[in-house]
Amino acid sequence: MNVVVNAAMSADGKLSSRRREQIAISGETDFARVDRLRAESDAVVVGVGTVLADDPHLTVKDAALRDQRLEAGDPAHPARVVVDSTARTPTDAEVIDDAAKTYLLVGESAPAERLAELTRAAADLEIVTAGEERVDLEAAFGELERAGLGTVMVEGGGELIFSLFEAGLVDELSVFVGPTVVGGRDAPTLADGKGFLEDFPELTLEAVERMDGGVLLRWAVGS
Amino acid sequence: MNVVVNAAMSADGKLSSRRREQIAISGETDFARVDRLRAESDAVVVGVGTVLADDPHLTVKDAALRDQRLEAGDPAHPARVVVDSTARTPTDAEVIDDAAKTYLLVGESAPAERLAELTRAAADLEIVTAGEERVDLEAAFGELERAGLGTVMVEGGGELIFSLFEAGLVDELSVFVGPTVVGGRDAPTLADGKGFLEDFPELTLEAVERMDGGVLLRWAVGS
Repeated sequence: MNVVVNAAMSADGKLSSRRREQIAISGETDFARVDRLRAESDAVVVGVGTVLADDPHLTVKDAALRDQRLEAGDPAHPARVVVDSTARTPTDAEVIDDAAKTYLLVGESAPAERLAELTRAAADLEIVTAGEERVDLEAAFGELERAGLGTVMVEGGGELIFSLFEAGLVDELSVFVGPTVVGGRDAPTLADGKGFLEDFPELTLEAVERMDGGVLLRWAVGS
Repeated sequence: MNVVVNAAMSADGKLSSRRREQIAISGETDFARVDRLRAESDAVVVGVGTVLADDPHLTVKDAALRDQRLEAGDPAHPARVVVDSTARTPTDAEVIDDAAKTYLLVGESAPAERLAELTRAAADLEIVTAGEERVDLEAAFGELERAGLGTVMVEGGGELIFSLFEAGLVDELSVFVGPTVVGGRDAPTLADGKGFLEDFPELTLEAVERMDGGVLLRWAVGS
C-alpha cells in the first residue's frame, strides 16, 4: 500500500487556528493539485477530529477528473476512510453520504449502538474493527489493502498524521507551506500526538515547487 | 530597526521535542549561514525560555567573521538580548558572560533582588525595563534602537517569535525546514503563544534555497 500524507500548513506549521477553524492557507493552484491527488487515489483518509471540525466531503471536485475515473472503470470518487476509534462520526456527516463508499476504522471498544446508528445513516459504510481502545492502524490499513485500496491519500489532521508516522505507515509527505503565520501553542500542527523523543522519522526532500505564494515540499519517508 | 527572525524547524513545524531537548534539524551549511547572520547583526535576541532550555552563548563562532567585525570597528560579537519579563535568567547563564554586552529586557514587576544578582553576576549587563507583568516589546525594542542596535536577529523560541509577530515588529522570517518529523501537540513550534484567530500576518516568499537535506524559506512580512 502506498500512503501519501497531504496537508497545507502555515509558515509556522499550523493546520488551523487554536479554535480549529479552517484558514485559507493555500490557493487555487494547490486546491487543483489536491483534487488531482484525490482523483489518483483509491481512498482519502481523515481522522475523526477533522470530520468533527470541518465536516469534509472528500470527493473529487473536477468533473473531468471524475469522468477519467469512470472511464478507467473506477467509481467517480475514491473511497473515504475515517479513523474513528470510538465511532464519534456524526450520523449526518458529509463523509458518509451517498457520493462514495466509506470505511469507518474503529476500535473494539466502539459502542455497538453507535455503529448500528451509523450503518443505518450511511449510504455505503463498511466498518473495519482493529485494536482495542484505539484503532490499530497497521492492522486496519492491512484490511484496507486486502479490500483493494492500493494508494491512499491522508488529509489529516495532525493527530492521525502523527499516529501514522508512529506506526511507520507513511511513504510520502506532501506539504504546502503557506504565506501566513497562525501561531498558538494549542493550534493543531501537521503532526501532533505525543511526539517523538528519539528515532525521529527521517525524510528525503524529493521536490520543491513554488505555488500560491508559498511552496510545496514533497518528502519521501526514509533517508 | 530591522528585525529578522531566524529558526530551524522540522518538516512539521517543531523547534524541539516536547521535552524541549534540542534536535539536530539543520546541518553544517545552515550553521554557517546562521553564524554569518549573527556576524552581520548588531544584536542576537532570544526569549528566556530558550536560555533556560539551551543555555546558548549566541556568539559568532567563525574567527574570520569576528575579525571582519573588529576591522569594521565593531565588537567581536553582536550584543545579546534576552526577553525575560520576570528576570529568570540564571546567574551562570552563558548569555551574560564576558564575551559580549547583554541587554536584559524585563517588566516592571521583575524582582529587584534578582536584577541586582544578575547585574553582579554578569560581565556587561544593561537592564531595559518596559511594560508591567510582561515586557512591552515595542517600547523595549525602541530602547534598543536608540541604543544603536539597527539590525537584530531573533533566534527564538516560539513564544517570543509569536509575541514579536503580535506586536508587528518582525520584518523578515528565515526558516530552515529540515528533513525530519518531530510531532507532539506539546512540542514547541515556530510561533506559539496564544495564536492568531484573525488578521493573520501575511508573508511574501522572497527566496527558496535547498540546503542540508531541507530547504531555507525566506519570507518578508507583509503582502
